[in-house]
Amino acid sequence: MKLSLQRKNDLPLYRQIANQIREYIRTGALPIGSRLPTIRELAHEYGLTRLTVQSAYAELQSEGLVEAGVGRGTFVADHLPIPTSLHTPPIPALSPPSWLSQGILADMMRMTAHPDLLSFAQAIPEATTFPTQDLSRSLRVALDDPASLSYSSTQGELSLREQVAHILLDRGIVTPPDLVMITSGAQQAIDLALRAFVSREDVILVEEPTYVGMLELVAQRGQRIVGIPSDEFGILPDAVEAACKRHHPRLLYLIPTFHNPTGLSLSNERRQALLRLARTYNFLIFEDDVAGMLAYDDSATPAIKASDPDGRVIYATSFSKVLLPGVRLGMIVAEEKYLLPLLAARRTSDLFSSPLLQHALADYLHRHHLSTHLQRVRPLYHARRDALLSALQRHLPECSWTCPLGGFNLWVTFPEQINERDFYLQAIERGVGIAPGAAFFLQSQVRAHMRLSFGAHTPEHIEQGMAILGDLLHTHLRYLQRVAARTGFTNSLL
Amino acid sequence: MKLSLQRKNDLPLYRQIANQIREYIRTGALPIGSRLPTIRELAHEYGLTRLTVQSAYAELQSEGLVEAGVGRGTFVADHLPIPTSLHTPPIPALSPPSWLSQGILADMMRMTAHPDLLSFAQAIPEATTFPTQDLSRSLRVALDDPASLSYSSTQGELSLREQVAHILLDRGIVTPPDLVMITSGAQQAIDLALRAFVSREDVILVEEPTYVGMLELVAQRGQRIVGIPSDEFGILPDAVEAACKRHHPRLLYLIPTFHNPTGLSLSNERRQALLRLARTYNFLIFEDDVAGMLAYDDSATPAIKASDPDGRVIYATSFSKVLLPGVRLGMIVAEEKYLLPLLAARRTSDLFSSPLLQHALADYLHRHHLSTHLQRVRPLYHARRDALLSALQRHLPECSWTCPLGGFNLWVTFPEQINERDFYLQAIERGVGIAPGAAFFLQSQVRAHMRLSFGAHTPEHIEQGMAILGDLLHTHLRYLQRVAARTGFTNSLL
Repeated sequence: MKLSLQRKNDLPLYRQIANQIREYIRTGALPIGSRLPTIRELAHEYGLTRLTVQSAYAELQSEGLVEAGVGRGTFVADHLPIPTSLHTPPIPALSPPSWLSQGILADMMRMTAHPDLLSFAQAIPEATTFPTQDLSRSLRVALDDPASLSYSSTQGELSLREQVAHILLDRGIVTPPDLVMITSGAQQAIDLALRAFVSREDVILVEEPTYVGMLELVAQRGQRIVGIPSDEFGILPDAVEAACKRHHPRLLYLIPTFHNPTGLSLSNERRQALLRLARTYNFLIFEDDVAGMLAYDDSATPAIKASDPDGRVIYATSFSKVLLPGVRLGMIVAEEKYLLPLLAARRTSDLFSSPLLQHALADYLHRHHLSTHLQRVRPLYHARRDALLSALQRHLPECSWTCPLGGFNLWVTFPEQINERDFYLQAIERGVGIAPGAAFFLQSQVRAHMRLSFGAHTPEHIEQGMAILGDLLHTHLRYLQRVAARTGFTNSLL
Repeated sequence: MKLSLQRKNDLPLYRQIANQIREYIRTGALPIGSRLPTIRELAHEYGLTRLTVQSAYAELQSEGLVEAGVGRGTFVADHLPIPTSLHTPPIPALSPPSWLSQGILADMMRMTAHPDLLSFAQAIPEATTFPTQDLSRSLRVALDDPASLSYSSTQGELSLREQVAHILLDRGIVTPPDLVMITSGAQQAIDLALRAFVSREDVILVEEPTYVGMLELVAQRGQRIVGIPSDEFGILPDAVEAACKRHHPRLLYLIPTFHNPTGLSLSNERRQALLRLARTYNFLIFEDDVAGMLAYDDSATPAIKASDPDGRVIYATSFSKVLLPGVRLGMIVAEEKYLLPLLAARRTSDLFSSPLLQHALADYLHRHHLSTHLQRVRPLYHARRDALLSALQRHLPECSWTCPLGGFNLWVTFPEQINERDFYLQAIERGVGIAPGAAFFLQSQVRAHMRLSFGAHTPEHIEQGMAILGDLLHTHLRYLQRVAARTGFTNSLL
């Protein structure tokens, strides 16, 4: 068991020890029943007092994570408690769970709408790329069909499902239109999958960090959920396996390509490893691929669904990021046995999507292949990513960040002492919106992060926004230096 | 306690007694703790053997509905068991719950789409009344606004909420646009209300019969639900009160105006009684008003929401029946404290409705007041109802039926011996679709029913359809007569 302890950290050493062991237990690196080092051993190895180690173990014991018996040592407990946050009754959630309002998803949308805010919070495509004229013509064509204005099928219009089957070839997915289902965007696809496959007792695995809309949905449902840590190559299959052994999950929610919020993609080896684990431990993979078609260099890793021998992958994507959000159309591809409960869930949710918009989109896609549109927007987002990288280097060099190869999300990690909540609120005060890192995690993190979504901003606006954020960061750092100079210690909780 | 026993019925007398007492208990006519007549009394009153009554009581006791103690008599038990059907795990429901496929809602939609079927199963407005030309112009206007194609607010576009507030004045509802929320039709409104307000432990009350989409949703959620009987004036407030005392319901789902499936409206006195009960027993009323604007004589009872002093009514309606279904737009009106959890539920469901369709509909409603459209369609549906009444009188005189004053649903009750399932399937075989009565009840009924939705059919088609159904009915009746002649008894279970 390897610990990384920082004596200069304001967090007491026993807390650092407890936090790290807790994480090992949570991710399964320390399996149930495994024996922790004795207090004497650990104290000796890291040059700590016994009291420090004892305090750490006592904290874990009080949380029910470990059990100790006189003379027997300390062991990882059999039944892990579910985090308290998941015990709270899911609905009605009258008290807003977020800092400002009704949750960060609501905040992001409100920031976008705010006229005086330059917001990088919500992941939005560039509005000038929306094919308004072409869509207008397609809407007129759709209106000529009386079926466009009446009741429609829950699975979606065949003309659109055919176009979808064609488009998904570019993601390596070969599917008949019969196994395609139209949804109102990817959020509905996720909701339907949970309704169809996950009972309240079932456990869901998610990467951490992950999509905020997934986390809010799961919190509302009062669902049992386990976060799996990631490194720079994506989610850790070993941690998934450890979680499988402990929790027997029903479903793994995954954003393997141009991940939200990090922008990174999961390596091919890990994709294959996850498919093997899904078979071994009998769980479904929900593949959220909303940005999968937005590779800058036309060479994104194929979808996991492209190599899904057992049909365990429920694949979902949407037209919202790659074409336009305003038609609210997305899609699911799944085996027939999974499609049936998804359709049942859709019927009781909202019956079906507007046939008018489905016919119009099918007509548009028939006339203008999506690849033509993608050839226009990919270089645009590529250039904006470059502008953001350069602005970050100039204005926030104290931070680190990811370098996405597609999509329009980028993930920034702040220097250690920065308080995320303060930074988020003060950025709004200065007219810049960001998505705070906390939104993407199940549990609060020591380190501050932010997601910057650059799809809808020109390089000039990106430069302007980063200059403001850089100035704010330096104000924070100077303040922390002043406090450190007076008190002799740094404090990330200031 | 009044029993109606039929000695010629093939159902044994003890079963008839048990069934009727069970119904009295279920509806609250026999409250918890109330004493049943002694076996001797009941046997004497109805000229039965004591064994017959004893068998009936034993059946009720084995179901946990009544308790008996030696020398103490028989009493209605304190804790009523939930019907077994509600114990089954809600999802995934891979085995289709219906006769033909994935549930009657799916069947109805499939029947509509079937080219060779004259279907009265789904409640659909007349397609030739859809304002295609005007909507086309409004869509062009909407496309001029770039906001139409991007992300939008979860509550819905203000321009449409303003139009909605204006329209609802005709239903007696005075609301600021701030308390209006746009939904993807009424089905989503129901789903959101259950997500926002009803936990798995909570009990929901519904009228019986009621909307099939509500029953399928509740079954999927594995929700506890209690059906309240209705008479020709609508749901029985006394039965609601009895259910309140026993079950402490969280929400009453109600279709008070041009009810689905019966087409009837709840009297004003009963509306007021329900509002008083909602206050006394602290439950919410979900008012489904999808047909409320379709009164033939322009004088529908105002919505319950129109007189809602405590703000306990969640009001929902939709443009699907009154204007056109293909835009998938509906609305909720609720107090702010209820609106917030509804918005949270909507965000995790599917974020928001298409701003393009919202802007287009708002523009259409701004130019052409909905009342102009309603003045065109109301006489149309009135004439079709008359055509249906006359065709029923001619072809199915052995049945009884309701006489709706608005909307386009009518409820038919078959003669006693008709088997509903056979009639439904054979009607399809002969090319006519109907909605079988069983779809609208929680538990199977002895008496057969069907809902006829006549909105989309000309008087000629109505005549044609009823002639076929009449012929089928007479075939059934002749068959039953033949069997009766041979065996000496009639059999509703044949």
